[in-house]
Amino acid sequence: MSKIPELREHFSKIMTLKYIYNVLDYDQQVFMPKGSVKGRAEQIALIQELIHEMIIAPKTTSLIERAEKIPNLELIDAAVLREAKREHEQAIRLPGKLVKEIAKTSSLGHQAWETAREKNDFKIFKPLLERMIELQIEKAEKLETHPSLYSTLIDLYEPGATHEWLENIFKKLKKHLIRILTALENAPDKPDDSILKKHYDKEKQWKFSLEILKKLNFNFNHGRQDLSAHPFTSSLSSVDVRITTRIWENFLPACLFGAIHECGHALYEMNLMEEIHSTNLAMGTSMGMHEAMSRLHENILGRSKEFWTYWYPKLQSYFPEHLKNFPESEFYRAINVVKPSLIRVEADEVTYGLHIILRFELEKMLIENNLSVDEIPETWNDKSEELLGIKPPNDSLGVLQDVHWSAGFFGYFPTYSLGNLYASQIHATLLKNHPDLPEKIKNGDYSILFTFLKENVFQYGKIFHPRELLIRITGEDLNPSHFVHYLEKKFYPIHSI
Amino acid sequence: MSKIPELREHFSKIMTLKYIYNVLDYDQQVFMPKGSVKGRAEQIALIQELIHEMIIAPKTTSLIERAEKIPNLELIDAAVLREAKREHEQAIRLPGKLVKEIAKTSSLGHQAWETAREKNDFKIFKPLLERMIELQIEKAEKLETHPSLYSTLIDLYEPGATHEWLENIFKKLKKHLIRILTALENAPDKPDDSILKKHYDKEKQWKFSLEILKKLNFNFNHGRQDLSAHPFTSSLSSVDVRITTRIWENFLPACLFGAIHECGHALYEMNLMEEIHSTNLAMGTSMGMHEAMSRLHENILGRSKEFWTYWYPKLQSYFPEHLKNFPESEFYRAINVVKPSLIRVEADEVTYGLHIILRFELEKMLIENNLSVDEIPETWNDKSEELLGIKPPNDSLGVLQDVHWSAGFFGYFPTYSLGNLYASQIHATLLKNHPDLPEKIKNGDYSILFTFLKENVFQYGKIFHPRELLIRITGEDLNPSHFVHYLEKKFYPIHSI
Repeated sequence: MSKIPELREHFSKIMTLKYIYNVLDYDQQVFMPKGSVKGRAEQIALIQELIHEMIIAPKTTSLIERAEKIPNLELIDAAVLREAKREHEQAIRLPGKLVKEIAKTSSLGHQAWETAREKNDFKIFKPLLERMIELQIEKAEKLETHPSLYSTLIDLYEPGATHEWLENIFKKLKKHLIRILTALENAPDKPDDSILKKHYDKEKQWKFSLEILKKLNFNFNHGRQDLSAHPFTSSLSSVDVRITTRIWENFLPACLFGAIHECGHALYEMNLMEEIHSTNLAMGTSMGMHEAMSRLHENILGRSKEFWTYWYPKLQSYFPEHLKNFPESEFYRAINVVKPSLIRVEADEVTYGLHIILRFELEKMLIENNLSVDEIPETWNDKSEELLGIKPPNDSLGVLQDVHWSAGFFGYFPTYSLGNLYASQIHATLLKNHPDLPEKIKNGDYSILFTFLKENVFQYGKIFHPRELLIRITGEDLNPSHFVHYLEKKFYPIHSI
Repeated sequence: MSKIPELREHFSKIMTLKYIYNVLDYDQQVFMPKGSVKGRAEQIALIQELIHEMIIAPKTTSLIERAEKIPNLELIDAAVLREAKREHEQAIRLPGKLVKEIAKTSSLGHQAWETAREKNDFKIFKPLLERMIELQIEKAEKLETHPSLYSTLIDLYEPGATHEWLENIFKKLKKHLIRILTALENAPDKPDDSILKKHYDKEKQWKFSLEILKKLNFNFNHGRQDLSAHPFTSSLSSVDVRITTRIWENFLPACLFGAIHECGHALYEMNLMEEIHSTNLAMGTSMGMHEAMSRLHENILGRSKEFWTYWYPKLQSYFPEHLKNFPESEFYRAINVVKPSLIRVEADEVTYGLHIILRFELEKMLIENNLSVDEIPETWNDKSEELLGIKPPNDSLGVLQDVHWSAGFFGYFPTYSLGNLYASQIHATLLKNHPDLPEKIKNGDYSILFTFLKENVFQYGKIFHPRELLIRITGEDLNPSHFVHYLEKKFYPIHSI
């Protein structure tokens, strides 16, 4: 029995409004006719207004104050209270004017960013980016959860993470990634992915992705897969989790790994313990931990040799015209090509982290006023050369490639890399506890993997903070050497090193 | 410039919440996974609560009182105020306890009705139907908009209609329908619809329906068509109107006429004048007028000879295996078979009204305590024999066939027949003003029809009450003889009378 039923109930209403927001947003991205934007925008604005009103209502303050006086709250009550306070304080500390200004700048910024990228002209985006950085600094000053402004922003996406902590981790990671990348680039035997760029029938790609989702325990009674421009996952309720993928006729990995990646996100949201359904704990604990679940599925599982022992014969029967005589071992190498490239979202497992470190270092300077917006393109290009060995020939392939800054998402990028690090550390523990895991995966049996993640990650939602959860599972704080070992153990043999 | 901008704005927020409700409902009926009902139910309950709170808020009362004091409101302001008062008074007069009791009884009643129909056992449904009738009587007593209880309920669906008015109309209609039906039944030459019951590929049926929708001015930039168990139309905003149809592989009319019927509803909602977008006038003025637009499209247009002059060659090229050598004139007759049957939703244009009159007469007795629930099945069966000449062999094919009473929709059935009457009266005026209409339709040109309906019906939304609108368009109050003439002119030749 909860000791704070009213607080739970109040935030459960707020959560219900958030689910409604997700229904409106999902429909807009997946089903809505093109000309219906205006009507939907009014609906979304109203729901956001109602959510905000409910969070800052005097009732919220009094419920929180009453809950704080109750001694010995059990685990879930304590977490409900913690999250309620966190959300309430954020909303209270941010003046309505600032929130609106950020929304407006984000909307204008998005348009300017799109045009700038299209015309390959950073100047078009520059004034809005400048304004957005000022606003983000103001936001961090108002929130004041950490002494460092950048840490305050990071904490919004990854509770408990600070920029000092990340800096320390990324410093080590950077050294190792560059070392491994150099080794792979000098390797005599590199994989070739041209087989993936042949023509693959769309309908068959779709069916194959559904077959994999079913096997991976995606629950079609509580979810569905659709198509959209960019793959994403959304919880329309605790029992309605939807994912999207896209299909490229001339690039097999787009649909396939898009689906597996989003499946990882969906499994997290689909397997919350029933007691926290519809509470303010009913979602993944952080962006980083969420990304860990998607990358564990996409990369550690989906791009592993064992996974394809089971699936390659099936894939061959879907596409005999290309794959009937193409060896499984070469297919495995093809989906694991490592090659420095300019675009983050197309990066492989080794170079991906370097793209993130570049953005992390830039964001830190921008938020702490050590870099002017004028200097961004050149600094970006220099860092790209330093980290990846290649310099973008223009800003569209450089600083203008990502949408995040136009939307005001400063402090978000690091969570992508945290995902890789969490995933490999959790996977190392899982392997230690279950040495028979690779054998099971070879047979298309994901029960050990699924049960382990459900018991240790999924079910808890936001009950534990991500670092706390990681330590509970693996017995140690974040340690990038697990990821480094994982990369070496996987990619050296692929390159005959 | 509106003189009551705040009242408009307040009810526009309420309208936005109603659109959100429609998004939640549409998604549930069309896309939502089966196992997600619980989460969606919480969202729908919350939105309904918010709508109710906003309607009964003290702010609403004071805005209405202020608006009432303003002299010389222009047309739209006056209608906004009228609808605001109507909705506010309804909400104020109905005690929350009664509303909840009806909702609960409706939910239990729906289950009981489903089981009763499945098991063909009226007794299972009886206690809940009894309770629902008591509650509807209580509701009418509280609302007290008319001296007669049944009129009060009818007015909820058809503002301005009373049971005396309907009784008078239905009395005439009944006489004529029975006369026409008798003539058709005794005709020597009856159409045969077996051609419609062959196997028609689903994908092709779907494509053909889309082709027709486009031609009929369904705006795919502000709408879409999907599949669902029962066809329906829903406005997800003023610029997002969606329809559904169903496809039966062995019955061509299901998809085809389902789509055309819903298209009529959709055109109404898609063509409101921009000034009333998102106001409380942004929807069809009544169930009857809505049904008029759908039936005008489905029956008067879609089952006409002229319509198929244009479409039959196209339909033949979709399904040459059945239609290549099947004459157009026989196809036209096949889609216009008249035959008394037990099930209302499958009834033809002539017998449909008799099904409605049966329900109207029963409802009147039930609401005015002149019939006990025990007596319903027998009375139903007797009336069926009197009106249609056939007696249901069991209650599943009789009193248990419709969902309406289980949901508490007493007073709704008459609007279906009003739809037919409005449609033929409006169509008669249209034909008088535009004698070239049939010729245009033969050429697949619906511009006269569309423009006439847009200018005279669609654009006004709820600005005018249905009877007012009818008189504005046709110059006379509702006159069933237009429908009677339409039926005679159409069905006598089909039967070589």
